[in-house]
Amino acid sequence: MADRSKDKEQISRRDMFSVPAKGALLAGAMATAGGGAAALLGSTSPAAAAGAHALKPGELDEYYGFWSSGQCGELRILGVPSMRELMRVPVFNRCSATGWGQTNESKKVLTEGLLPETKAYLATQGMETYHNGDLHHPHMSFTDGTYDGRYLFMNDKANTRVARIRCDVMKCDKIIEIPNASDIHGLRPQKFPRTGYVFANGEHRIPLPNDGKILDDPKKYVSIFSAIDGDKMEVAWQVIVSGNLDNCDADYQGKYAFSTSYNSEEGVTLAEMTESETDHVVIFNIARIEAAVKAGNYETHNGVPVVDGRKGSKLTAYVSIPNSPHGCNTAPDGKHVVINGKLSPTVSVIDVNKVDAVFNGADPRSCIVAEPELGLGPLHTAFDGKGNCYTTLFLDSQMCKWNMEKAIRQFKGEKIDPILAKTDVHYQPGHNHSSMGETKEADGKWLVSLNKFSKDRYINVGPLKPENEQLINIADGNPVVVHDSPTFAEPHDCIMVHRSKVNPDSIWKRTDPTWEEARKQAKADGVDLEEGAEKPIRDGNKVRVYMTSVAPSFSLETFTVKQGDEVTIYITNLDDVDDLTHGFTLGNHGIAFEVGPQATASVTFKADRPGVHWYYCQWFCHALHMEMRGRMFVEPRNA
Amino acid sequence: MADRSKDKEQISRRDMFSVPAKGALLAGAMATAGGGAAALLGSTSPAAAAGAHALKPGELDEYYGFWSSGQCGELRILGVPSMRELMRVPVFNRCSATGWGQTNESKKVLTEGLLPETKAYLATQGMETYHNGDLHHPHMSFTDGTYDGRYLFMNDKANTRVARIRCDVMKCDKIIEIPNASDIHGLRPQKFPRTGYVFANGEHRIPLPNDGKILDDPKKYVSIFSAIDGDKMEVAWQVIVSGNLDNCDADYQGKYAFSTSYNSEEGVTLAEMTESETDHVVIFNIARIEAAVKAGNYETHNGVPVVDGRKGSKLTAYVSIPNSPHGCNTAPDGKHVVINGKLSPTVSVIDVNKVDAVFNGADPRSCIVAEPELGLGPLHTAFDGKGNCYTTLFLDSQMCKWNMEKAIRQFKGEKIDPILAKTDVHYQPGHNHSSMGETKEADGKWLVSLNKFSKDRYINVGPLKPENEQLINIADGNPVVVHDSPTFAEPHDCIMVHRSKVNPDSIWKRTDPTWEEARKQAKADGVDLEEGAEKPIRDGNKVRVYMTSVAPSFSLETFTVKQGDEVTIYITNLDDVDDLTHGFTLGNHGIAFEVGPQATASVTFKADRPGVHWYYCQWFCHALHMEMRGRMFVEPRNA
Repeated sequence: MADRSKDKEQISRRDMFSVPAKGALLAGAMATAGGGAAALLGSTSPAAAAGAHALKPGELDEYYGFWSSGQCGELRILGVPSMRELMRVPVFNRCSATGWGQTNESKKVLTEGLLPETKAYLATQGMETYHNGDLHHPHMSFTDGTYDGRYLFMNDKANTRVARIRCDVMKCDKIIEIPNASDIHGLRPQKFPRTGYVFANGEHRIPLPNDGKILDDPKKYVSIFSAIDGDKMEVAWQVIVSGNLDNCDADYQGKYAFSTSYNSEEGVTLAEMTESETDHVVIFNIARIEAAVKAGNYETHNGVPVVDGRKGSKLTAYVSIPNSPHGCNTAPDGKHVVINGKLSPTVSVIDVNKVDAVFNGADPRSCIVAEPELGLGPLHTAFDGKGNCYTTLFLDSQMCKWNMEKAIRQFKGEKIDPILAKTDVHYQPGHNHSSMGETKEADGKWLVSLNKFSKDRYINVGPLKPENEQLINIADGNPVVVHDSPTFAEPHDCIMVHRSKVNPDSIWKRTDPTWEEARKQAKADGVDLEEGAEKPIRDGNKVRVYMTSVAPSFSLETFTVKQGDEVTIYITNLDDVDDLTHGFTLGNHGIAFEVGPQATASVTFKADRPGVHWYYCQWFCHALHMEMRGRMFVEPRNA
Repeated sequence: MADRSKDKEQISRRDMFSVPAKGALLAGAMATAGGGAAALLGSTSPAAAAGAHALKPGELDEYYGFWSSGQCGELRILGVPSMRELMRVPVFNRCSATGWGQTNESKKVLTEGLLPETKAYLATQGMETYHNGDLHHPHMSFTDGTYDGRYLFMNDKANTRVARIRCDVMKCDKIIEIPNASDIHGLRPQKFPRTGYVFANGEHRIPLPNDGKILDDPKKYVSIFSAIDGDKMEVAWQVIVSGNLDNCDADYQGKYAFSTSYNSEEGVTLAEMTESETDHVVIFNIARIEAAVKAGNYETHNGVPVVDGRKGSKLTAYVSIPNSPHGCNTAPDGKHVVINGKLSPTVSVIDVNKVDAVFNGADPRSCIVAEPELGLGPLHTAFDGKGNCYTTLFLDSQMCKWNMEKAIRQFKGEKIDPILAKTDVHYQPGHNHSSMGETKEADGKWLVSLNKFSKDRYINVGPLKPENEQLINIADGNPVVVHDSPTFAEPHDCIMVHRSKVNPDSIWKRTDPTWEEARKQAKADGVDLEEGAEKPIRDGNKVRVYMTSVAPSFSLETFTVKQGDEVTIYITNLDDVDDLTHGFTLGNHGIAFEVGPQATASVTFKADRPGVHWYYCQWFCHALHMEMRGRMFVEPRNA
């Protein structure tokens, strides 16, 4: 087995789609990381003068980039075109800085949406919630086909969850586990009339229910498509499909959703999953599914209505697509959906206007209006709003620019080449995205290529290398790579939203629901959160400490508890100045969290370390920041 | 109390050092975040043309920037001058991507250096180790006054620890808790003859021992200075000091270490800590301390020899410094140490060659050879190796360039202004650092200002703003800000190391000690880690699964365990290609970790979820990456 990696680079990339190629693929011969040569072939991508995209110090970016972080579990906010990371928003991960996963407020978000069986499992591990996630696809809520600045939604492939971030404060406010499905991958919001639904693909096939009665009997496994109510963050309905589910997108009409399946074979091994020359895209007929649910034509699993949309169902259509399609991207023309071939060098273009006929009995393939051959490993397609498409070619390490209209004419038989340009990227691009590109307001200014390998692009930082994302100027005809951005695992996907769409608050509102529990408890204790309490409030062995903060001091210089007490500390930051975040760190207790301007945050722990323990502000706030501290006295149990 | 933040910005910055100013400070009137005006005063810093420092796509950086992350708990590697983040190295935090804090290998690092009392405390919280840290000061090991590329050392202020990163693989290999001290702040390695010792300051004064017998009796508290053996990662000896300990540095002679104390008053409240007009720097006489330890003149606390270095001791010298000194920086001339005044507008320069005399009875202040007044809030000083110094002025939001020789002449009475330039930074700089600046090879090319507030420098990302670090070109006379870098909390400190000093491996060596425990267990099980085992090895209810990975597959497509089993999964990545990291995620189990090329990693958990669970590779590795997966069957307990 150790020898399988030895004969890499010996097979020509252009041989890959010959018949023996698939065997080579399966044998690992096409391993991606060895093929630096890929970038040297094909058309050239002249590097533009460095700094062409750069901003002067203090100059503002035009776009918010909302970036996933893959297995890192956080959402990142970048400025585009500067490509600078402006913020990390913890979602599925734990965050040492903000206390995400530790404060009572974040624990509520992280636990309340878990299934009872998951809570029971986690309890056997001594855990209240998961501490990891695999956040692939961040997308903003839409109204009328464009971003509306309300929410961001994102998936967790690792632990089958969907999360939401409030764009007014840029914090995660809801995480729900998706029942019945396994390993949520593709996720996209409804574009029209509004979000509405958030569509989410269960990638891996499992038994339903997955309780151990069915184990190695793959024919009884299913993949589940979910429609989540994005306002309530509840699963509205689910659909059992044939095959599996990879990526998805929604149309601009509010009628259909589309999901790719790379495993129509319903295999469980690499060989089985890649056996067939064709797979499919599933089209979900939203109105028919809603009608079926309304009519009671569903089974209930874990409280969710689950309809059967397997082949033969009237609720879905299955359109054959060559060999393991992956990406699924609706064009801003409102009409076309591009399905990316992965193991086929083609992309297949669906005309949304021809889908009605399919649901009325036409040949499913009749909705395909173009199928250009672009190169090796097409994974995802972005758009410039001017009729051009940009498809990542994973194996070729290129971005292929092609024209939709020309591809349609070629499909009709005209001798015409839809390919306009190929741009080398470094190396092996997965997702790409263009500025406003998944909305009807695609503006064709910037394209980002999210590359899975950086190899030689940076000084060596050890066995773990950064990923590499590249900014490409697409405004002026021939796409030009203008900037390389190294990135910690993993810039899986992103969106670029014009800054006019996003208007966050700078200071929390005291009425924010985030600390509703704290507000209730304070009221019960006769305490005003904005005033704090001069002494801890004792309730048996439960002790509640209410503090305020104003730079450079906490309202309490000391407080005393007893060993064995369950202590809850509430901090309300009274500073109402932009950027004046405080922190609360309790030394040698593993406790630290953020308290934004005008926010309240709290933590609960068992005091079990007798002695003097300093708490301090860890978010630099003032010239006397280091003096912003106080002492917790823990009286020994037997004192 | 809510009103304390109202009257900000009403006191002139230039009034601050009048007598009433301190009262204003204490009242919070000087709160930093409100003072955008600060940056508008003083001399101007014309922004250079954007991109002057930038690199073309694919061009390599000249320096490794090793960046702390403050309360984020990780170490960051940046490229300089591009200021791009190349890698995050988890240290005190938990990492969803790499499994740091979850793998058996990382848990060993995170737990083995904890004190028994800490382990006992954490057990009461259901924790094996801390999940947060406050990483302020990353510094590389030295040989003969310059970086040697062996290790990076760093402190955790939150939970009183010191960590080490191996620069061959850029992973943390040791974390130790420092006994007797509380909240390790300043940390610097010995520069000469080699590291050797790593000096670490216990900032907060606590009882010794801190077992609850002494609580609100601050006169009995102490601050502890520690010398850690950087090779063994053990505390060699400790020194009890008068006052507290803030930042520290070592000389180029191997004779002395220096620590600032902002709380010579030994106060416990803000008012008490800032009461006195003078504080001090403590100088530690290393040879005398070693002799005292050798002679048995110490008490043992927690197994560490602790000498008494309080005022009056021959082991230390206390040199008066105006008002709450903070930063402590040895100049590359090998001769001068700059002590930064914080609440005094001055920095005080110690001539190391005059310290011998102090230890032989001379007036401690006789080692001070310059004390220039630079501006408001001097915190840290960097050097260009050409005799010039760059001091951050926190309140002025400026970098002050001054000349050492001129400052010395001024101190001798000559009418000469040592200040060469003031450069506006945005806003409120803490640490700064120059390329190779803390070594004898300081090269005067780049300066970084690590600013605590970004305010209006970026598009708004909500109540929590990024910090802001700025790259300043100091090669050509007048310093010029050439780039703004937003940063997630908190770019507390950094070093910039020429790339010729650092030579990491790209692929792990199979003999690496990181997975020694796995190697031993495999041997006991008769398994070769590089081969894996075809079936799980059962030992009562303990089950061990040995797998290998070669893109795009794991050696096991399925394995079966029973509900209630304690399962350990070992993954050995056989790929030996640059950048071919794999990952192992076990779906719906909260398990995910990195396995670098030729590395082994493992995780242990209790199987308690009956059913079919997919594991998959989360580190994108191949065109068939998504098919790189397998199934764990968990048989129900009662089946």
